[in-house]
Amino acid sequence: MNAPQPAPGSVGIVEARKASFSEPLKLKSGAVLPQFEIAYETYGELNAARSNAVLVCHALNASHHVAGHYADDPDNVGWWDNLVGPGKPLDTRRFFVIGTNYLGSCFGSTGPASVNPATGKSWGADFPLVTVEDWVEAQARLADRLGIERFAGVIGGSLGAMQALQWTLSFPERIRHAIVIAATPRLSAQNIAFNEVARQAIMTDPDFHGGHYYEKGVVPRRGLRIARMIGHITYLSDDAMMEKFGRVLRGKAGPGFDFDIDFEIESYLRYQGDKFASYFDANTYLRITKALDYYDPAADFGGDLAAALARARAAFLVVSFTSDWRFASARSREIVKALLEGRKIVSYLEIDAPQGHDAFLMDDPRYHGALRAYFANVAL
Amino acid sequence: MNAPQPAPGSVGIVEARKASFSEPLKLKSGAVLPQFEIAYETYGELNAARSNAVLVCHALNASHHVAGHYADDPDNVGWWDNLVGPGKPLDTRRFFVIGTNYLGSCFGSTGPASVNPATGKSWGADFPLVTVEDWVEAQARLADRLGIERFAGVIGGSLGAMQALQWTLSFPERIRHAIVIAATPRLSAQNIAFNEVARQAIMTDPDFHGGHYYEKGVVPRRGLRIARMIGHITYLSDDAMMEKFGRVLRGKAGPGFDFDIDFEIESYLRYQGDKFASYFDANTYLRITKALDYYDPAADFGGDLAAALARARAAFLVVSFTSDWRFASARSREIVKALLEGRKIVSYLEIDAPQGHDAFLMDDPRYHGALRAYFANVAL
Repeated sequence: MNAPQPAPGSVGIVEARKASFSEPLKLKSGAVLPQFEIAYETYGELNAARSNAVLVCHALNASHHVAGHYADDPDNVGWWDNLVGPGKPLDTRRFFVIGTNYLGSCFGSTGPASVNPATGKSWGADFPLVTVEDWVEAQARLADRLGIERFAGVIGGSLGAMQALQWTLSFPERIRHAIVIAATPRLSAQNIAFNEVARQAIMTDPDFHGGHYYEKGVVPRRGLRIARMIGHITYLSDDAMMEKFGRVLRGKAGPGFDFDIDFEIESYLRYQGDKFASYFDANTYLRITKALDYYDPAADFGGDLAAALARARAAFLVVSFTSDWRFASARSREIVKALLEGRKIVSYLEIDAPQGHDAFLMDDPRYHGALRAYFANVAL
Repeated sequence: MNAPQPAPGSVGIVEARKASFSEPLKLKSGAVLPQFEIAYETYGELNAARSNAVLVCHALNASHHVAGHYADDPDNVGWWDNLVGPGKPLDTRRFFVIGTNYLGSCFGSTGPASVNPATGKSWGADFPLVTVEDWVEAQARLADRLGIERFAGVIGGSLGAMQALQWTLSFPERIRHAIVIAATPRLSAQNIAFNEVARQAIMTDPDFHGGHYYEKGVVPRRGLRIARMIGHITYLSDDAMMEKFGRVLRGKAGPGFDFDIDFEIESYLRYQGDKFASYFDANTYLRITKALDYYDPAADFGGDLAAALARARAAFLVVSFTSDWRFASARSREIVKALLEGRKIVSYLEIDAPQGHDAFLMDDPRYHGALRAYFANVAL
């Protein structure tokens, strides 16, 4: 009898952990979380010098489950498994990699569905709004707990990239390399607009009940579904969508002249929306979009991003994708320009990739080759 | 006592008219409309040779009220008043201009809210799906009624441009000039995706009742509101939105850390959504988005647009705007290329305008200057 073998380069079976913190966390809003838990996973081993730790921050819809799979759920493979593992670009034979879930999530860290110790009931609508800065603060507590004084690197794409960037500002001495992928230094009016439509879809769903839907035994599925459909459109490029779906009709020779599914793209969106609405928490979605909207490190510096980034001490790798219209390459170049003005160490890579914003999750050889080379040069 | 004077260049007080047709109209779907009305307005005078008529086709949210104002509603100025009037680019001293409302609209032509003669009740969900081809067919009946054998021109932007294009295919001998602005020869998968999200928002609104909401005394306001917000984002460019709204907070010094309005763009979208939901009919919205999705003149020619346009006899002016990402300039160039392959007479103008898709409604001097020059050269 042979035990199942992990796929080549996989970290294999992994286990989700939780770290509990009883010291209150003061949030940017002024609210205080009396206690909280952070869900996380680790891959590889922390070396004796404690110098090889890399923190992976996730974006809107992912979690601390970055690589490998669970013993009882072999199909649930981590979201960045193509990047993290033995022999992979972020090589777990060399690095101690930590996947962390952010505060307010619905995947294990304390969030709106958690019990509010003051009431003994779910927080629901009373869970405070959390920010990118708050997430980094909570992650620093986790680093303390794991005995990591300084990260070799912090890496993330999209919303995860904002966290990597914020690490260089909140804890300049605790991060040596920031890998900032598919990022923006702040959302544009159009970015905020898409988030606002998603929020309005959720909040006007009659099953939302002002955010107190847990106690009603319902979830605002309709709103979540619409929110996810909108999101999906912005994750893909027009070209990628045309390439993947075109105007192909789904199982019919001509238009149906009704409101059932005509085109494949409609089927795809409905499927993605239904799936998301079956597992994602609406109160979390609302808060994450607000964290995105609010993030703006230059705001306290009169909009001067170079001034805002002056206190960073890390070296930077910034990566963008040409077909990303959600956070276009021009936005990454703003970050690069501000870093160069401040004479920071920065490498910039603009990948000619067709997939849109989601390209950061793909394993384009130029992209992954560059990450591999970058990590290989990180001294331990 | 001075009577109020119309603004310079205005056509002044206008009157909406209706033309009733009792001859059944067979639709592309195979359904038959037993009778129908078309709402329209006219400006200027038809000349003795009946050679100076220009038909103006509207896009999603407009109507036959193209220019001037109503005697009892002076603030309700036509949607293309900056283009149409005495001395304006489409000069009503020279041309007889007709603004027409499409079939299925909620602004006067027969549509879902009209009475179904078979039942004596509103059509509601039973109103058939109408297509661009059906609209042009109905408009030809209107032209017959007005005694116009051949139009000097047919002009439209966006969905209106599809009608202008279709005129050259449905009635090649009845149109001398097609002015096709901010157009696409067919929707992309991304275009369809945005339409589908809007439809799903409407159709999953509990007040939709499968389209039979008239009899319930409600309207799916929540869904219409979301649909309009999504639409608005696609009408504006990212840059134009940033220029107009930026990240400016609405009446507050810092983020509110709640789900009230933080940013000006949120206020704008909510306002536009609420306003639209108060007057637009959801059954019409659903049908218009389907008409957009379905339009694809090349479909019957194996996707060969040049072959599809071969039967056109008109001269063409095609205009696109560089910042339009809904129907990008590349899509207009597809039309131009296909026309040139067929050795048609075509002029193409790509205007460097920042406003996005909505630029076709603006009075950019290069844009309006070109239209003025083009119309001046139309022989009567």
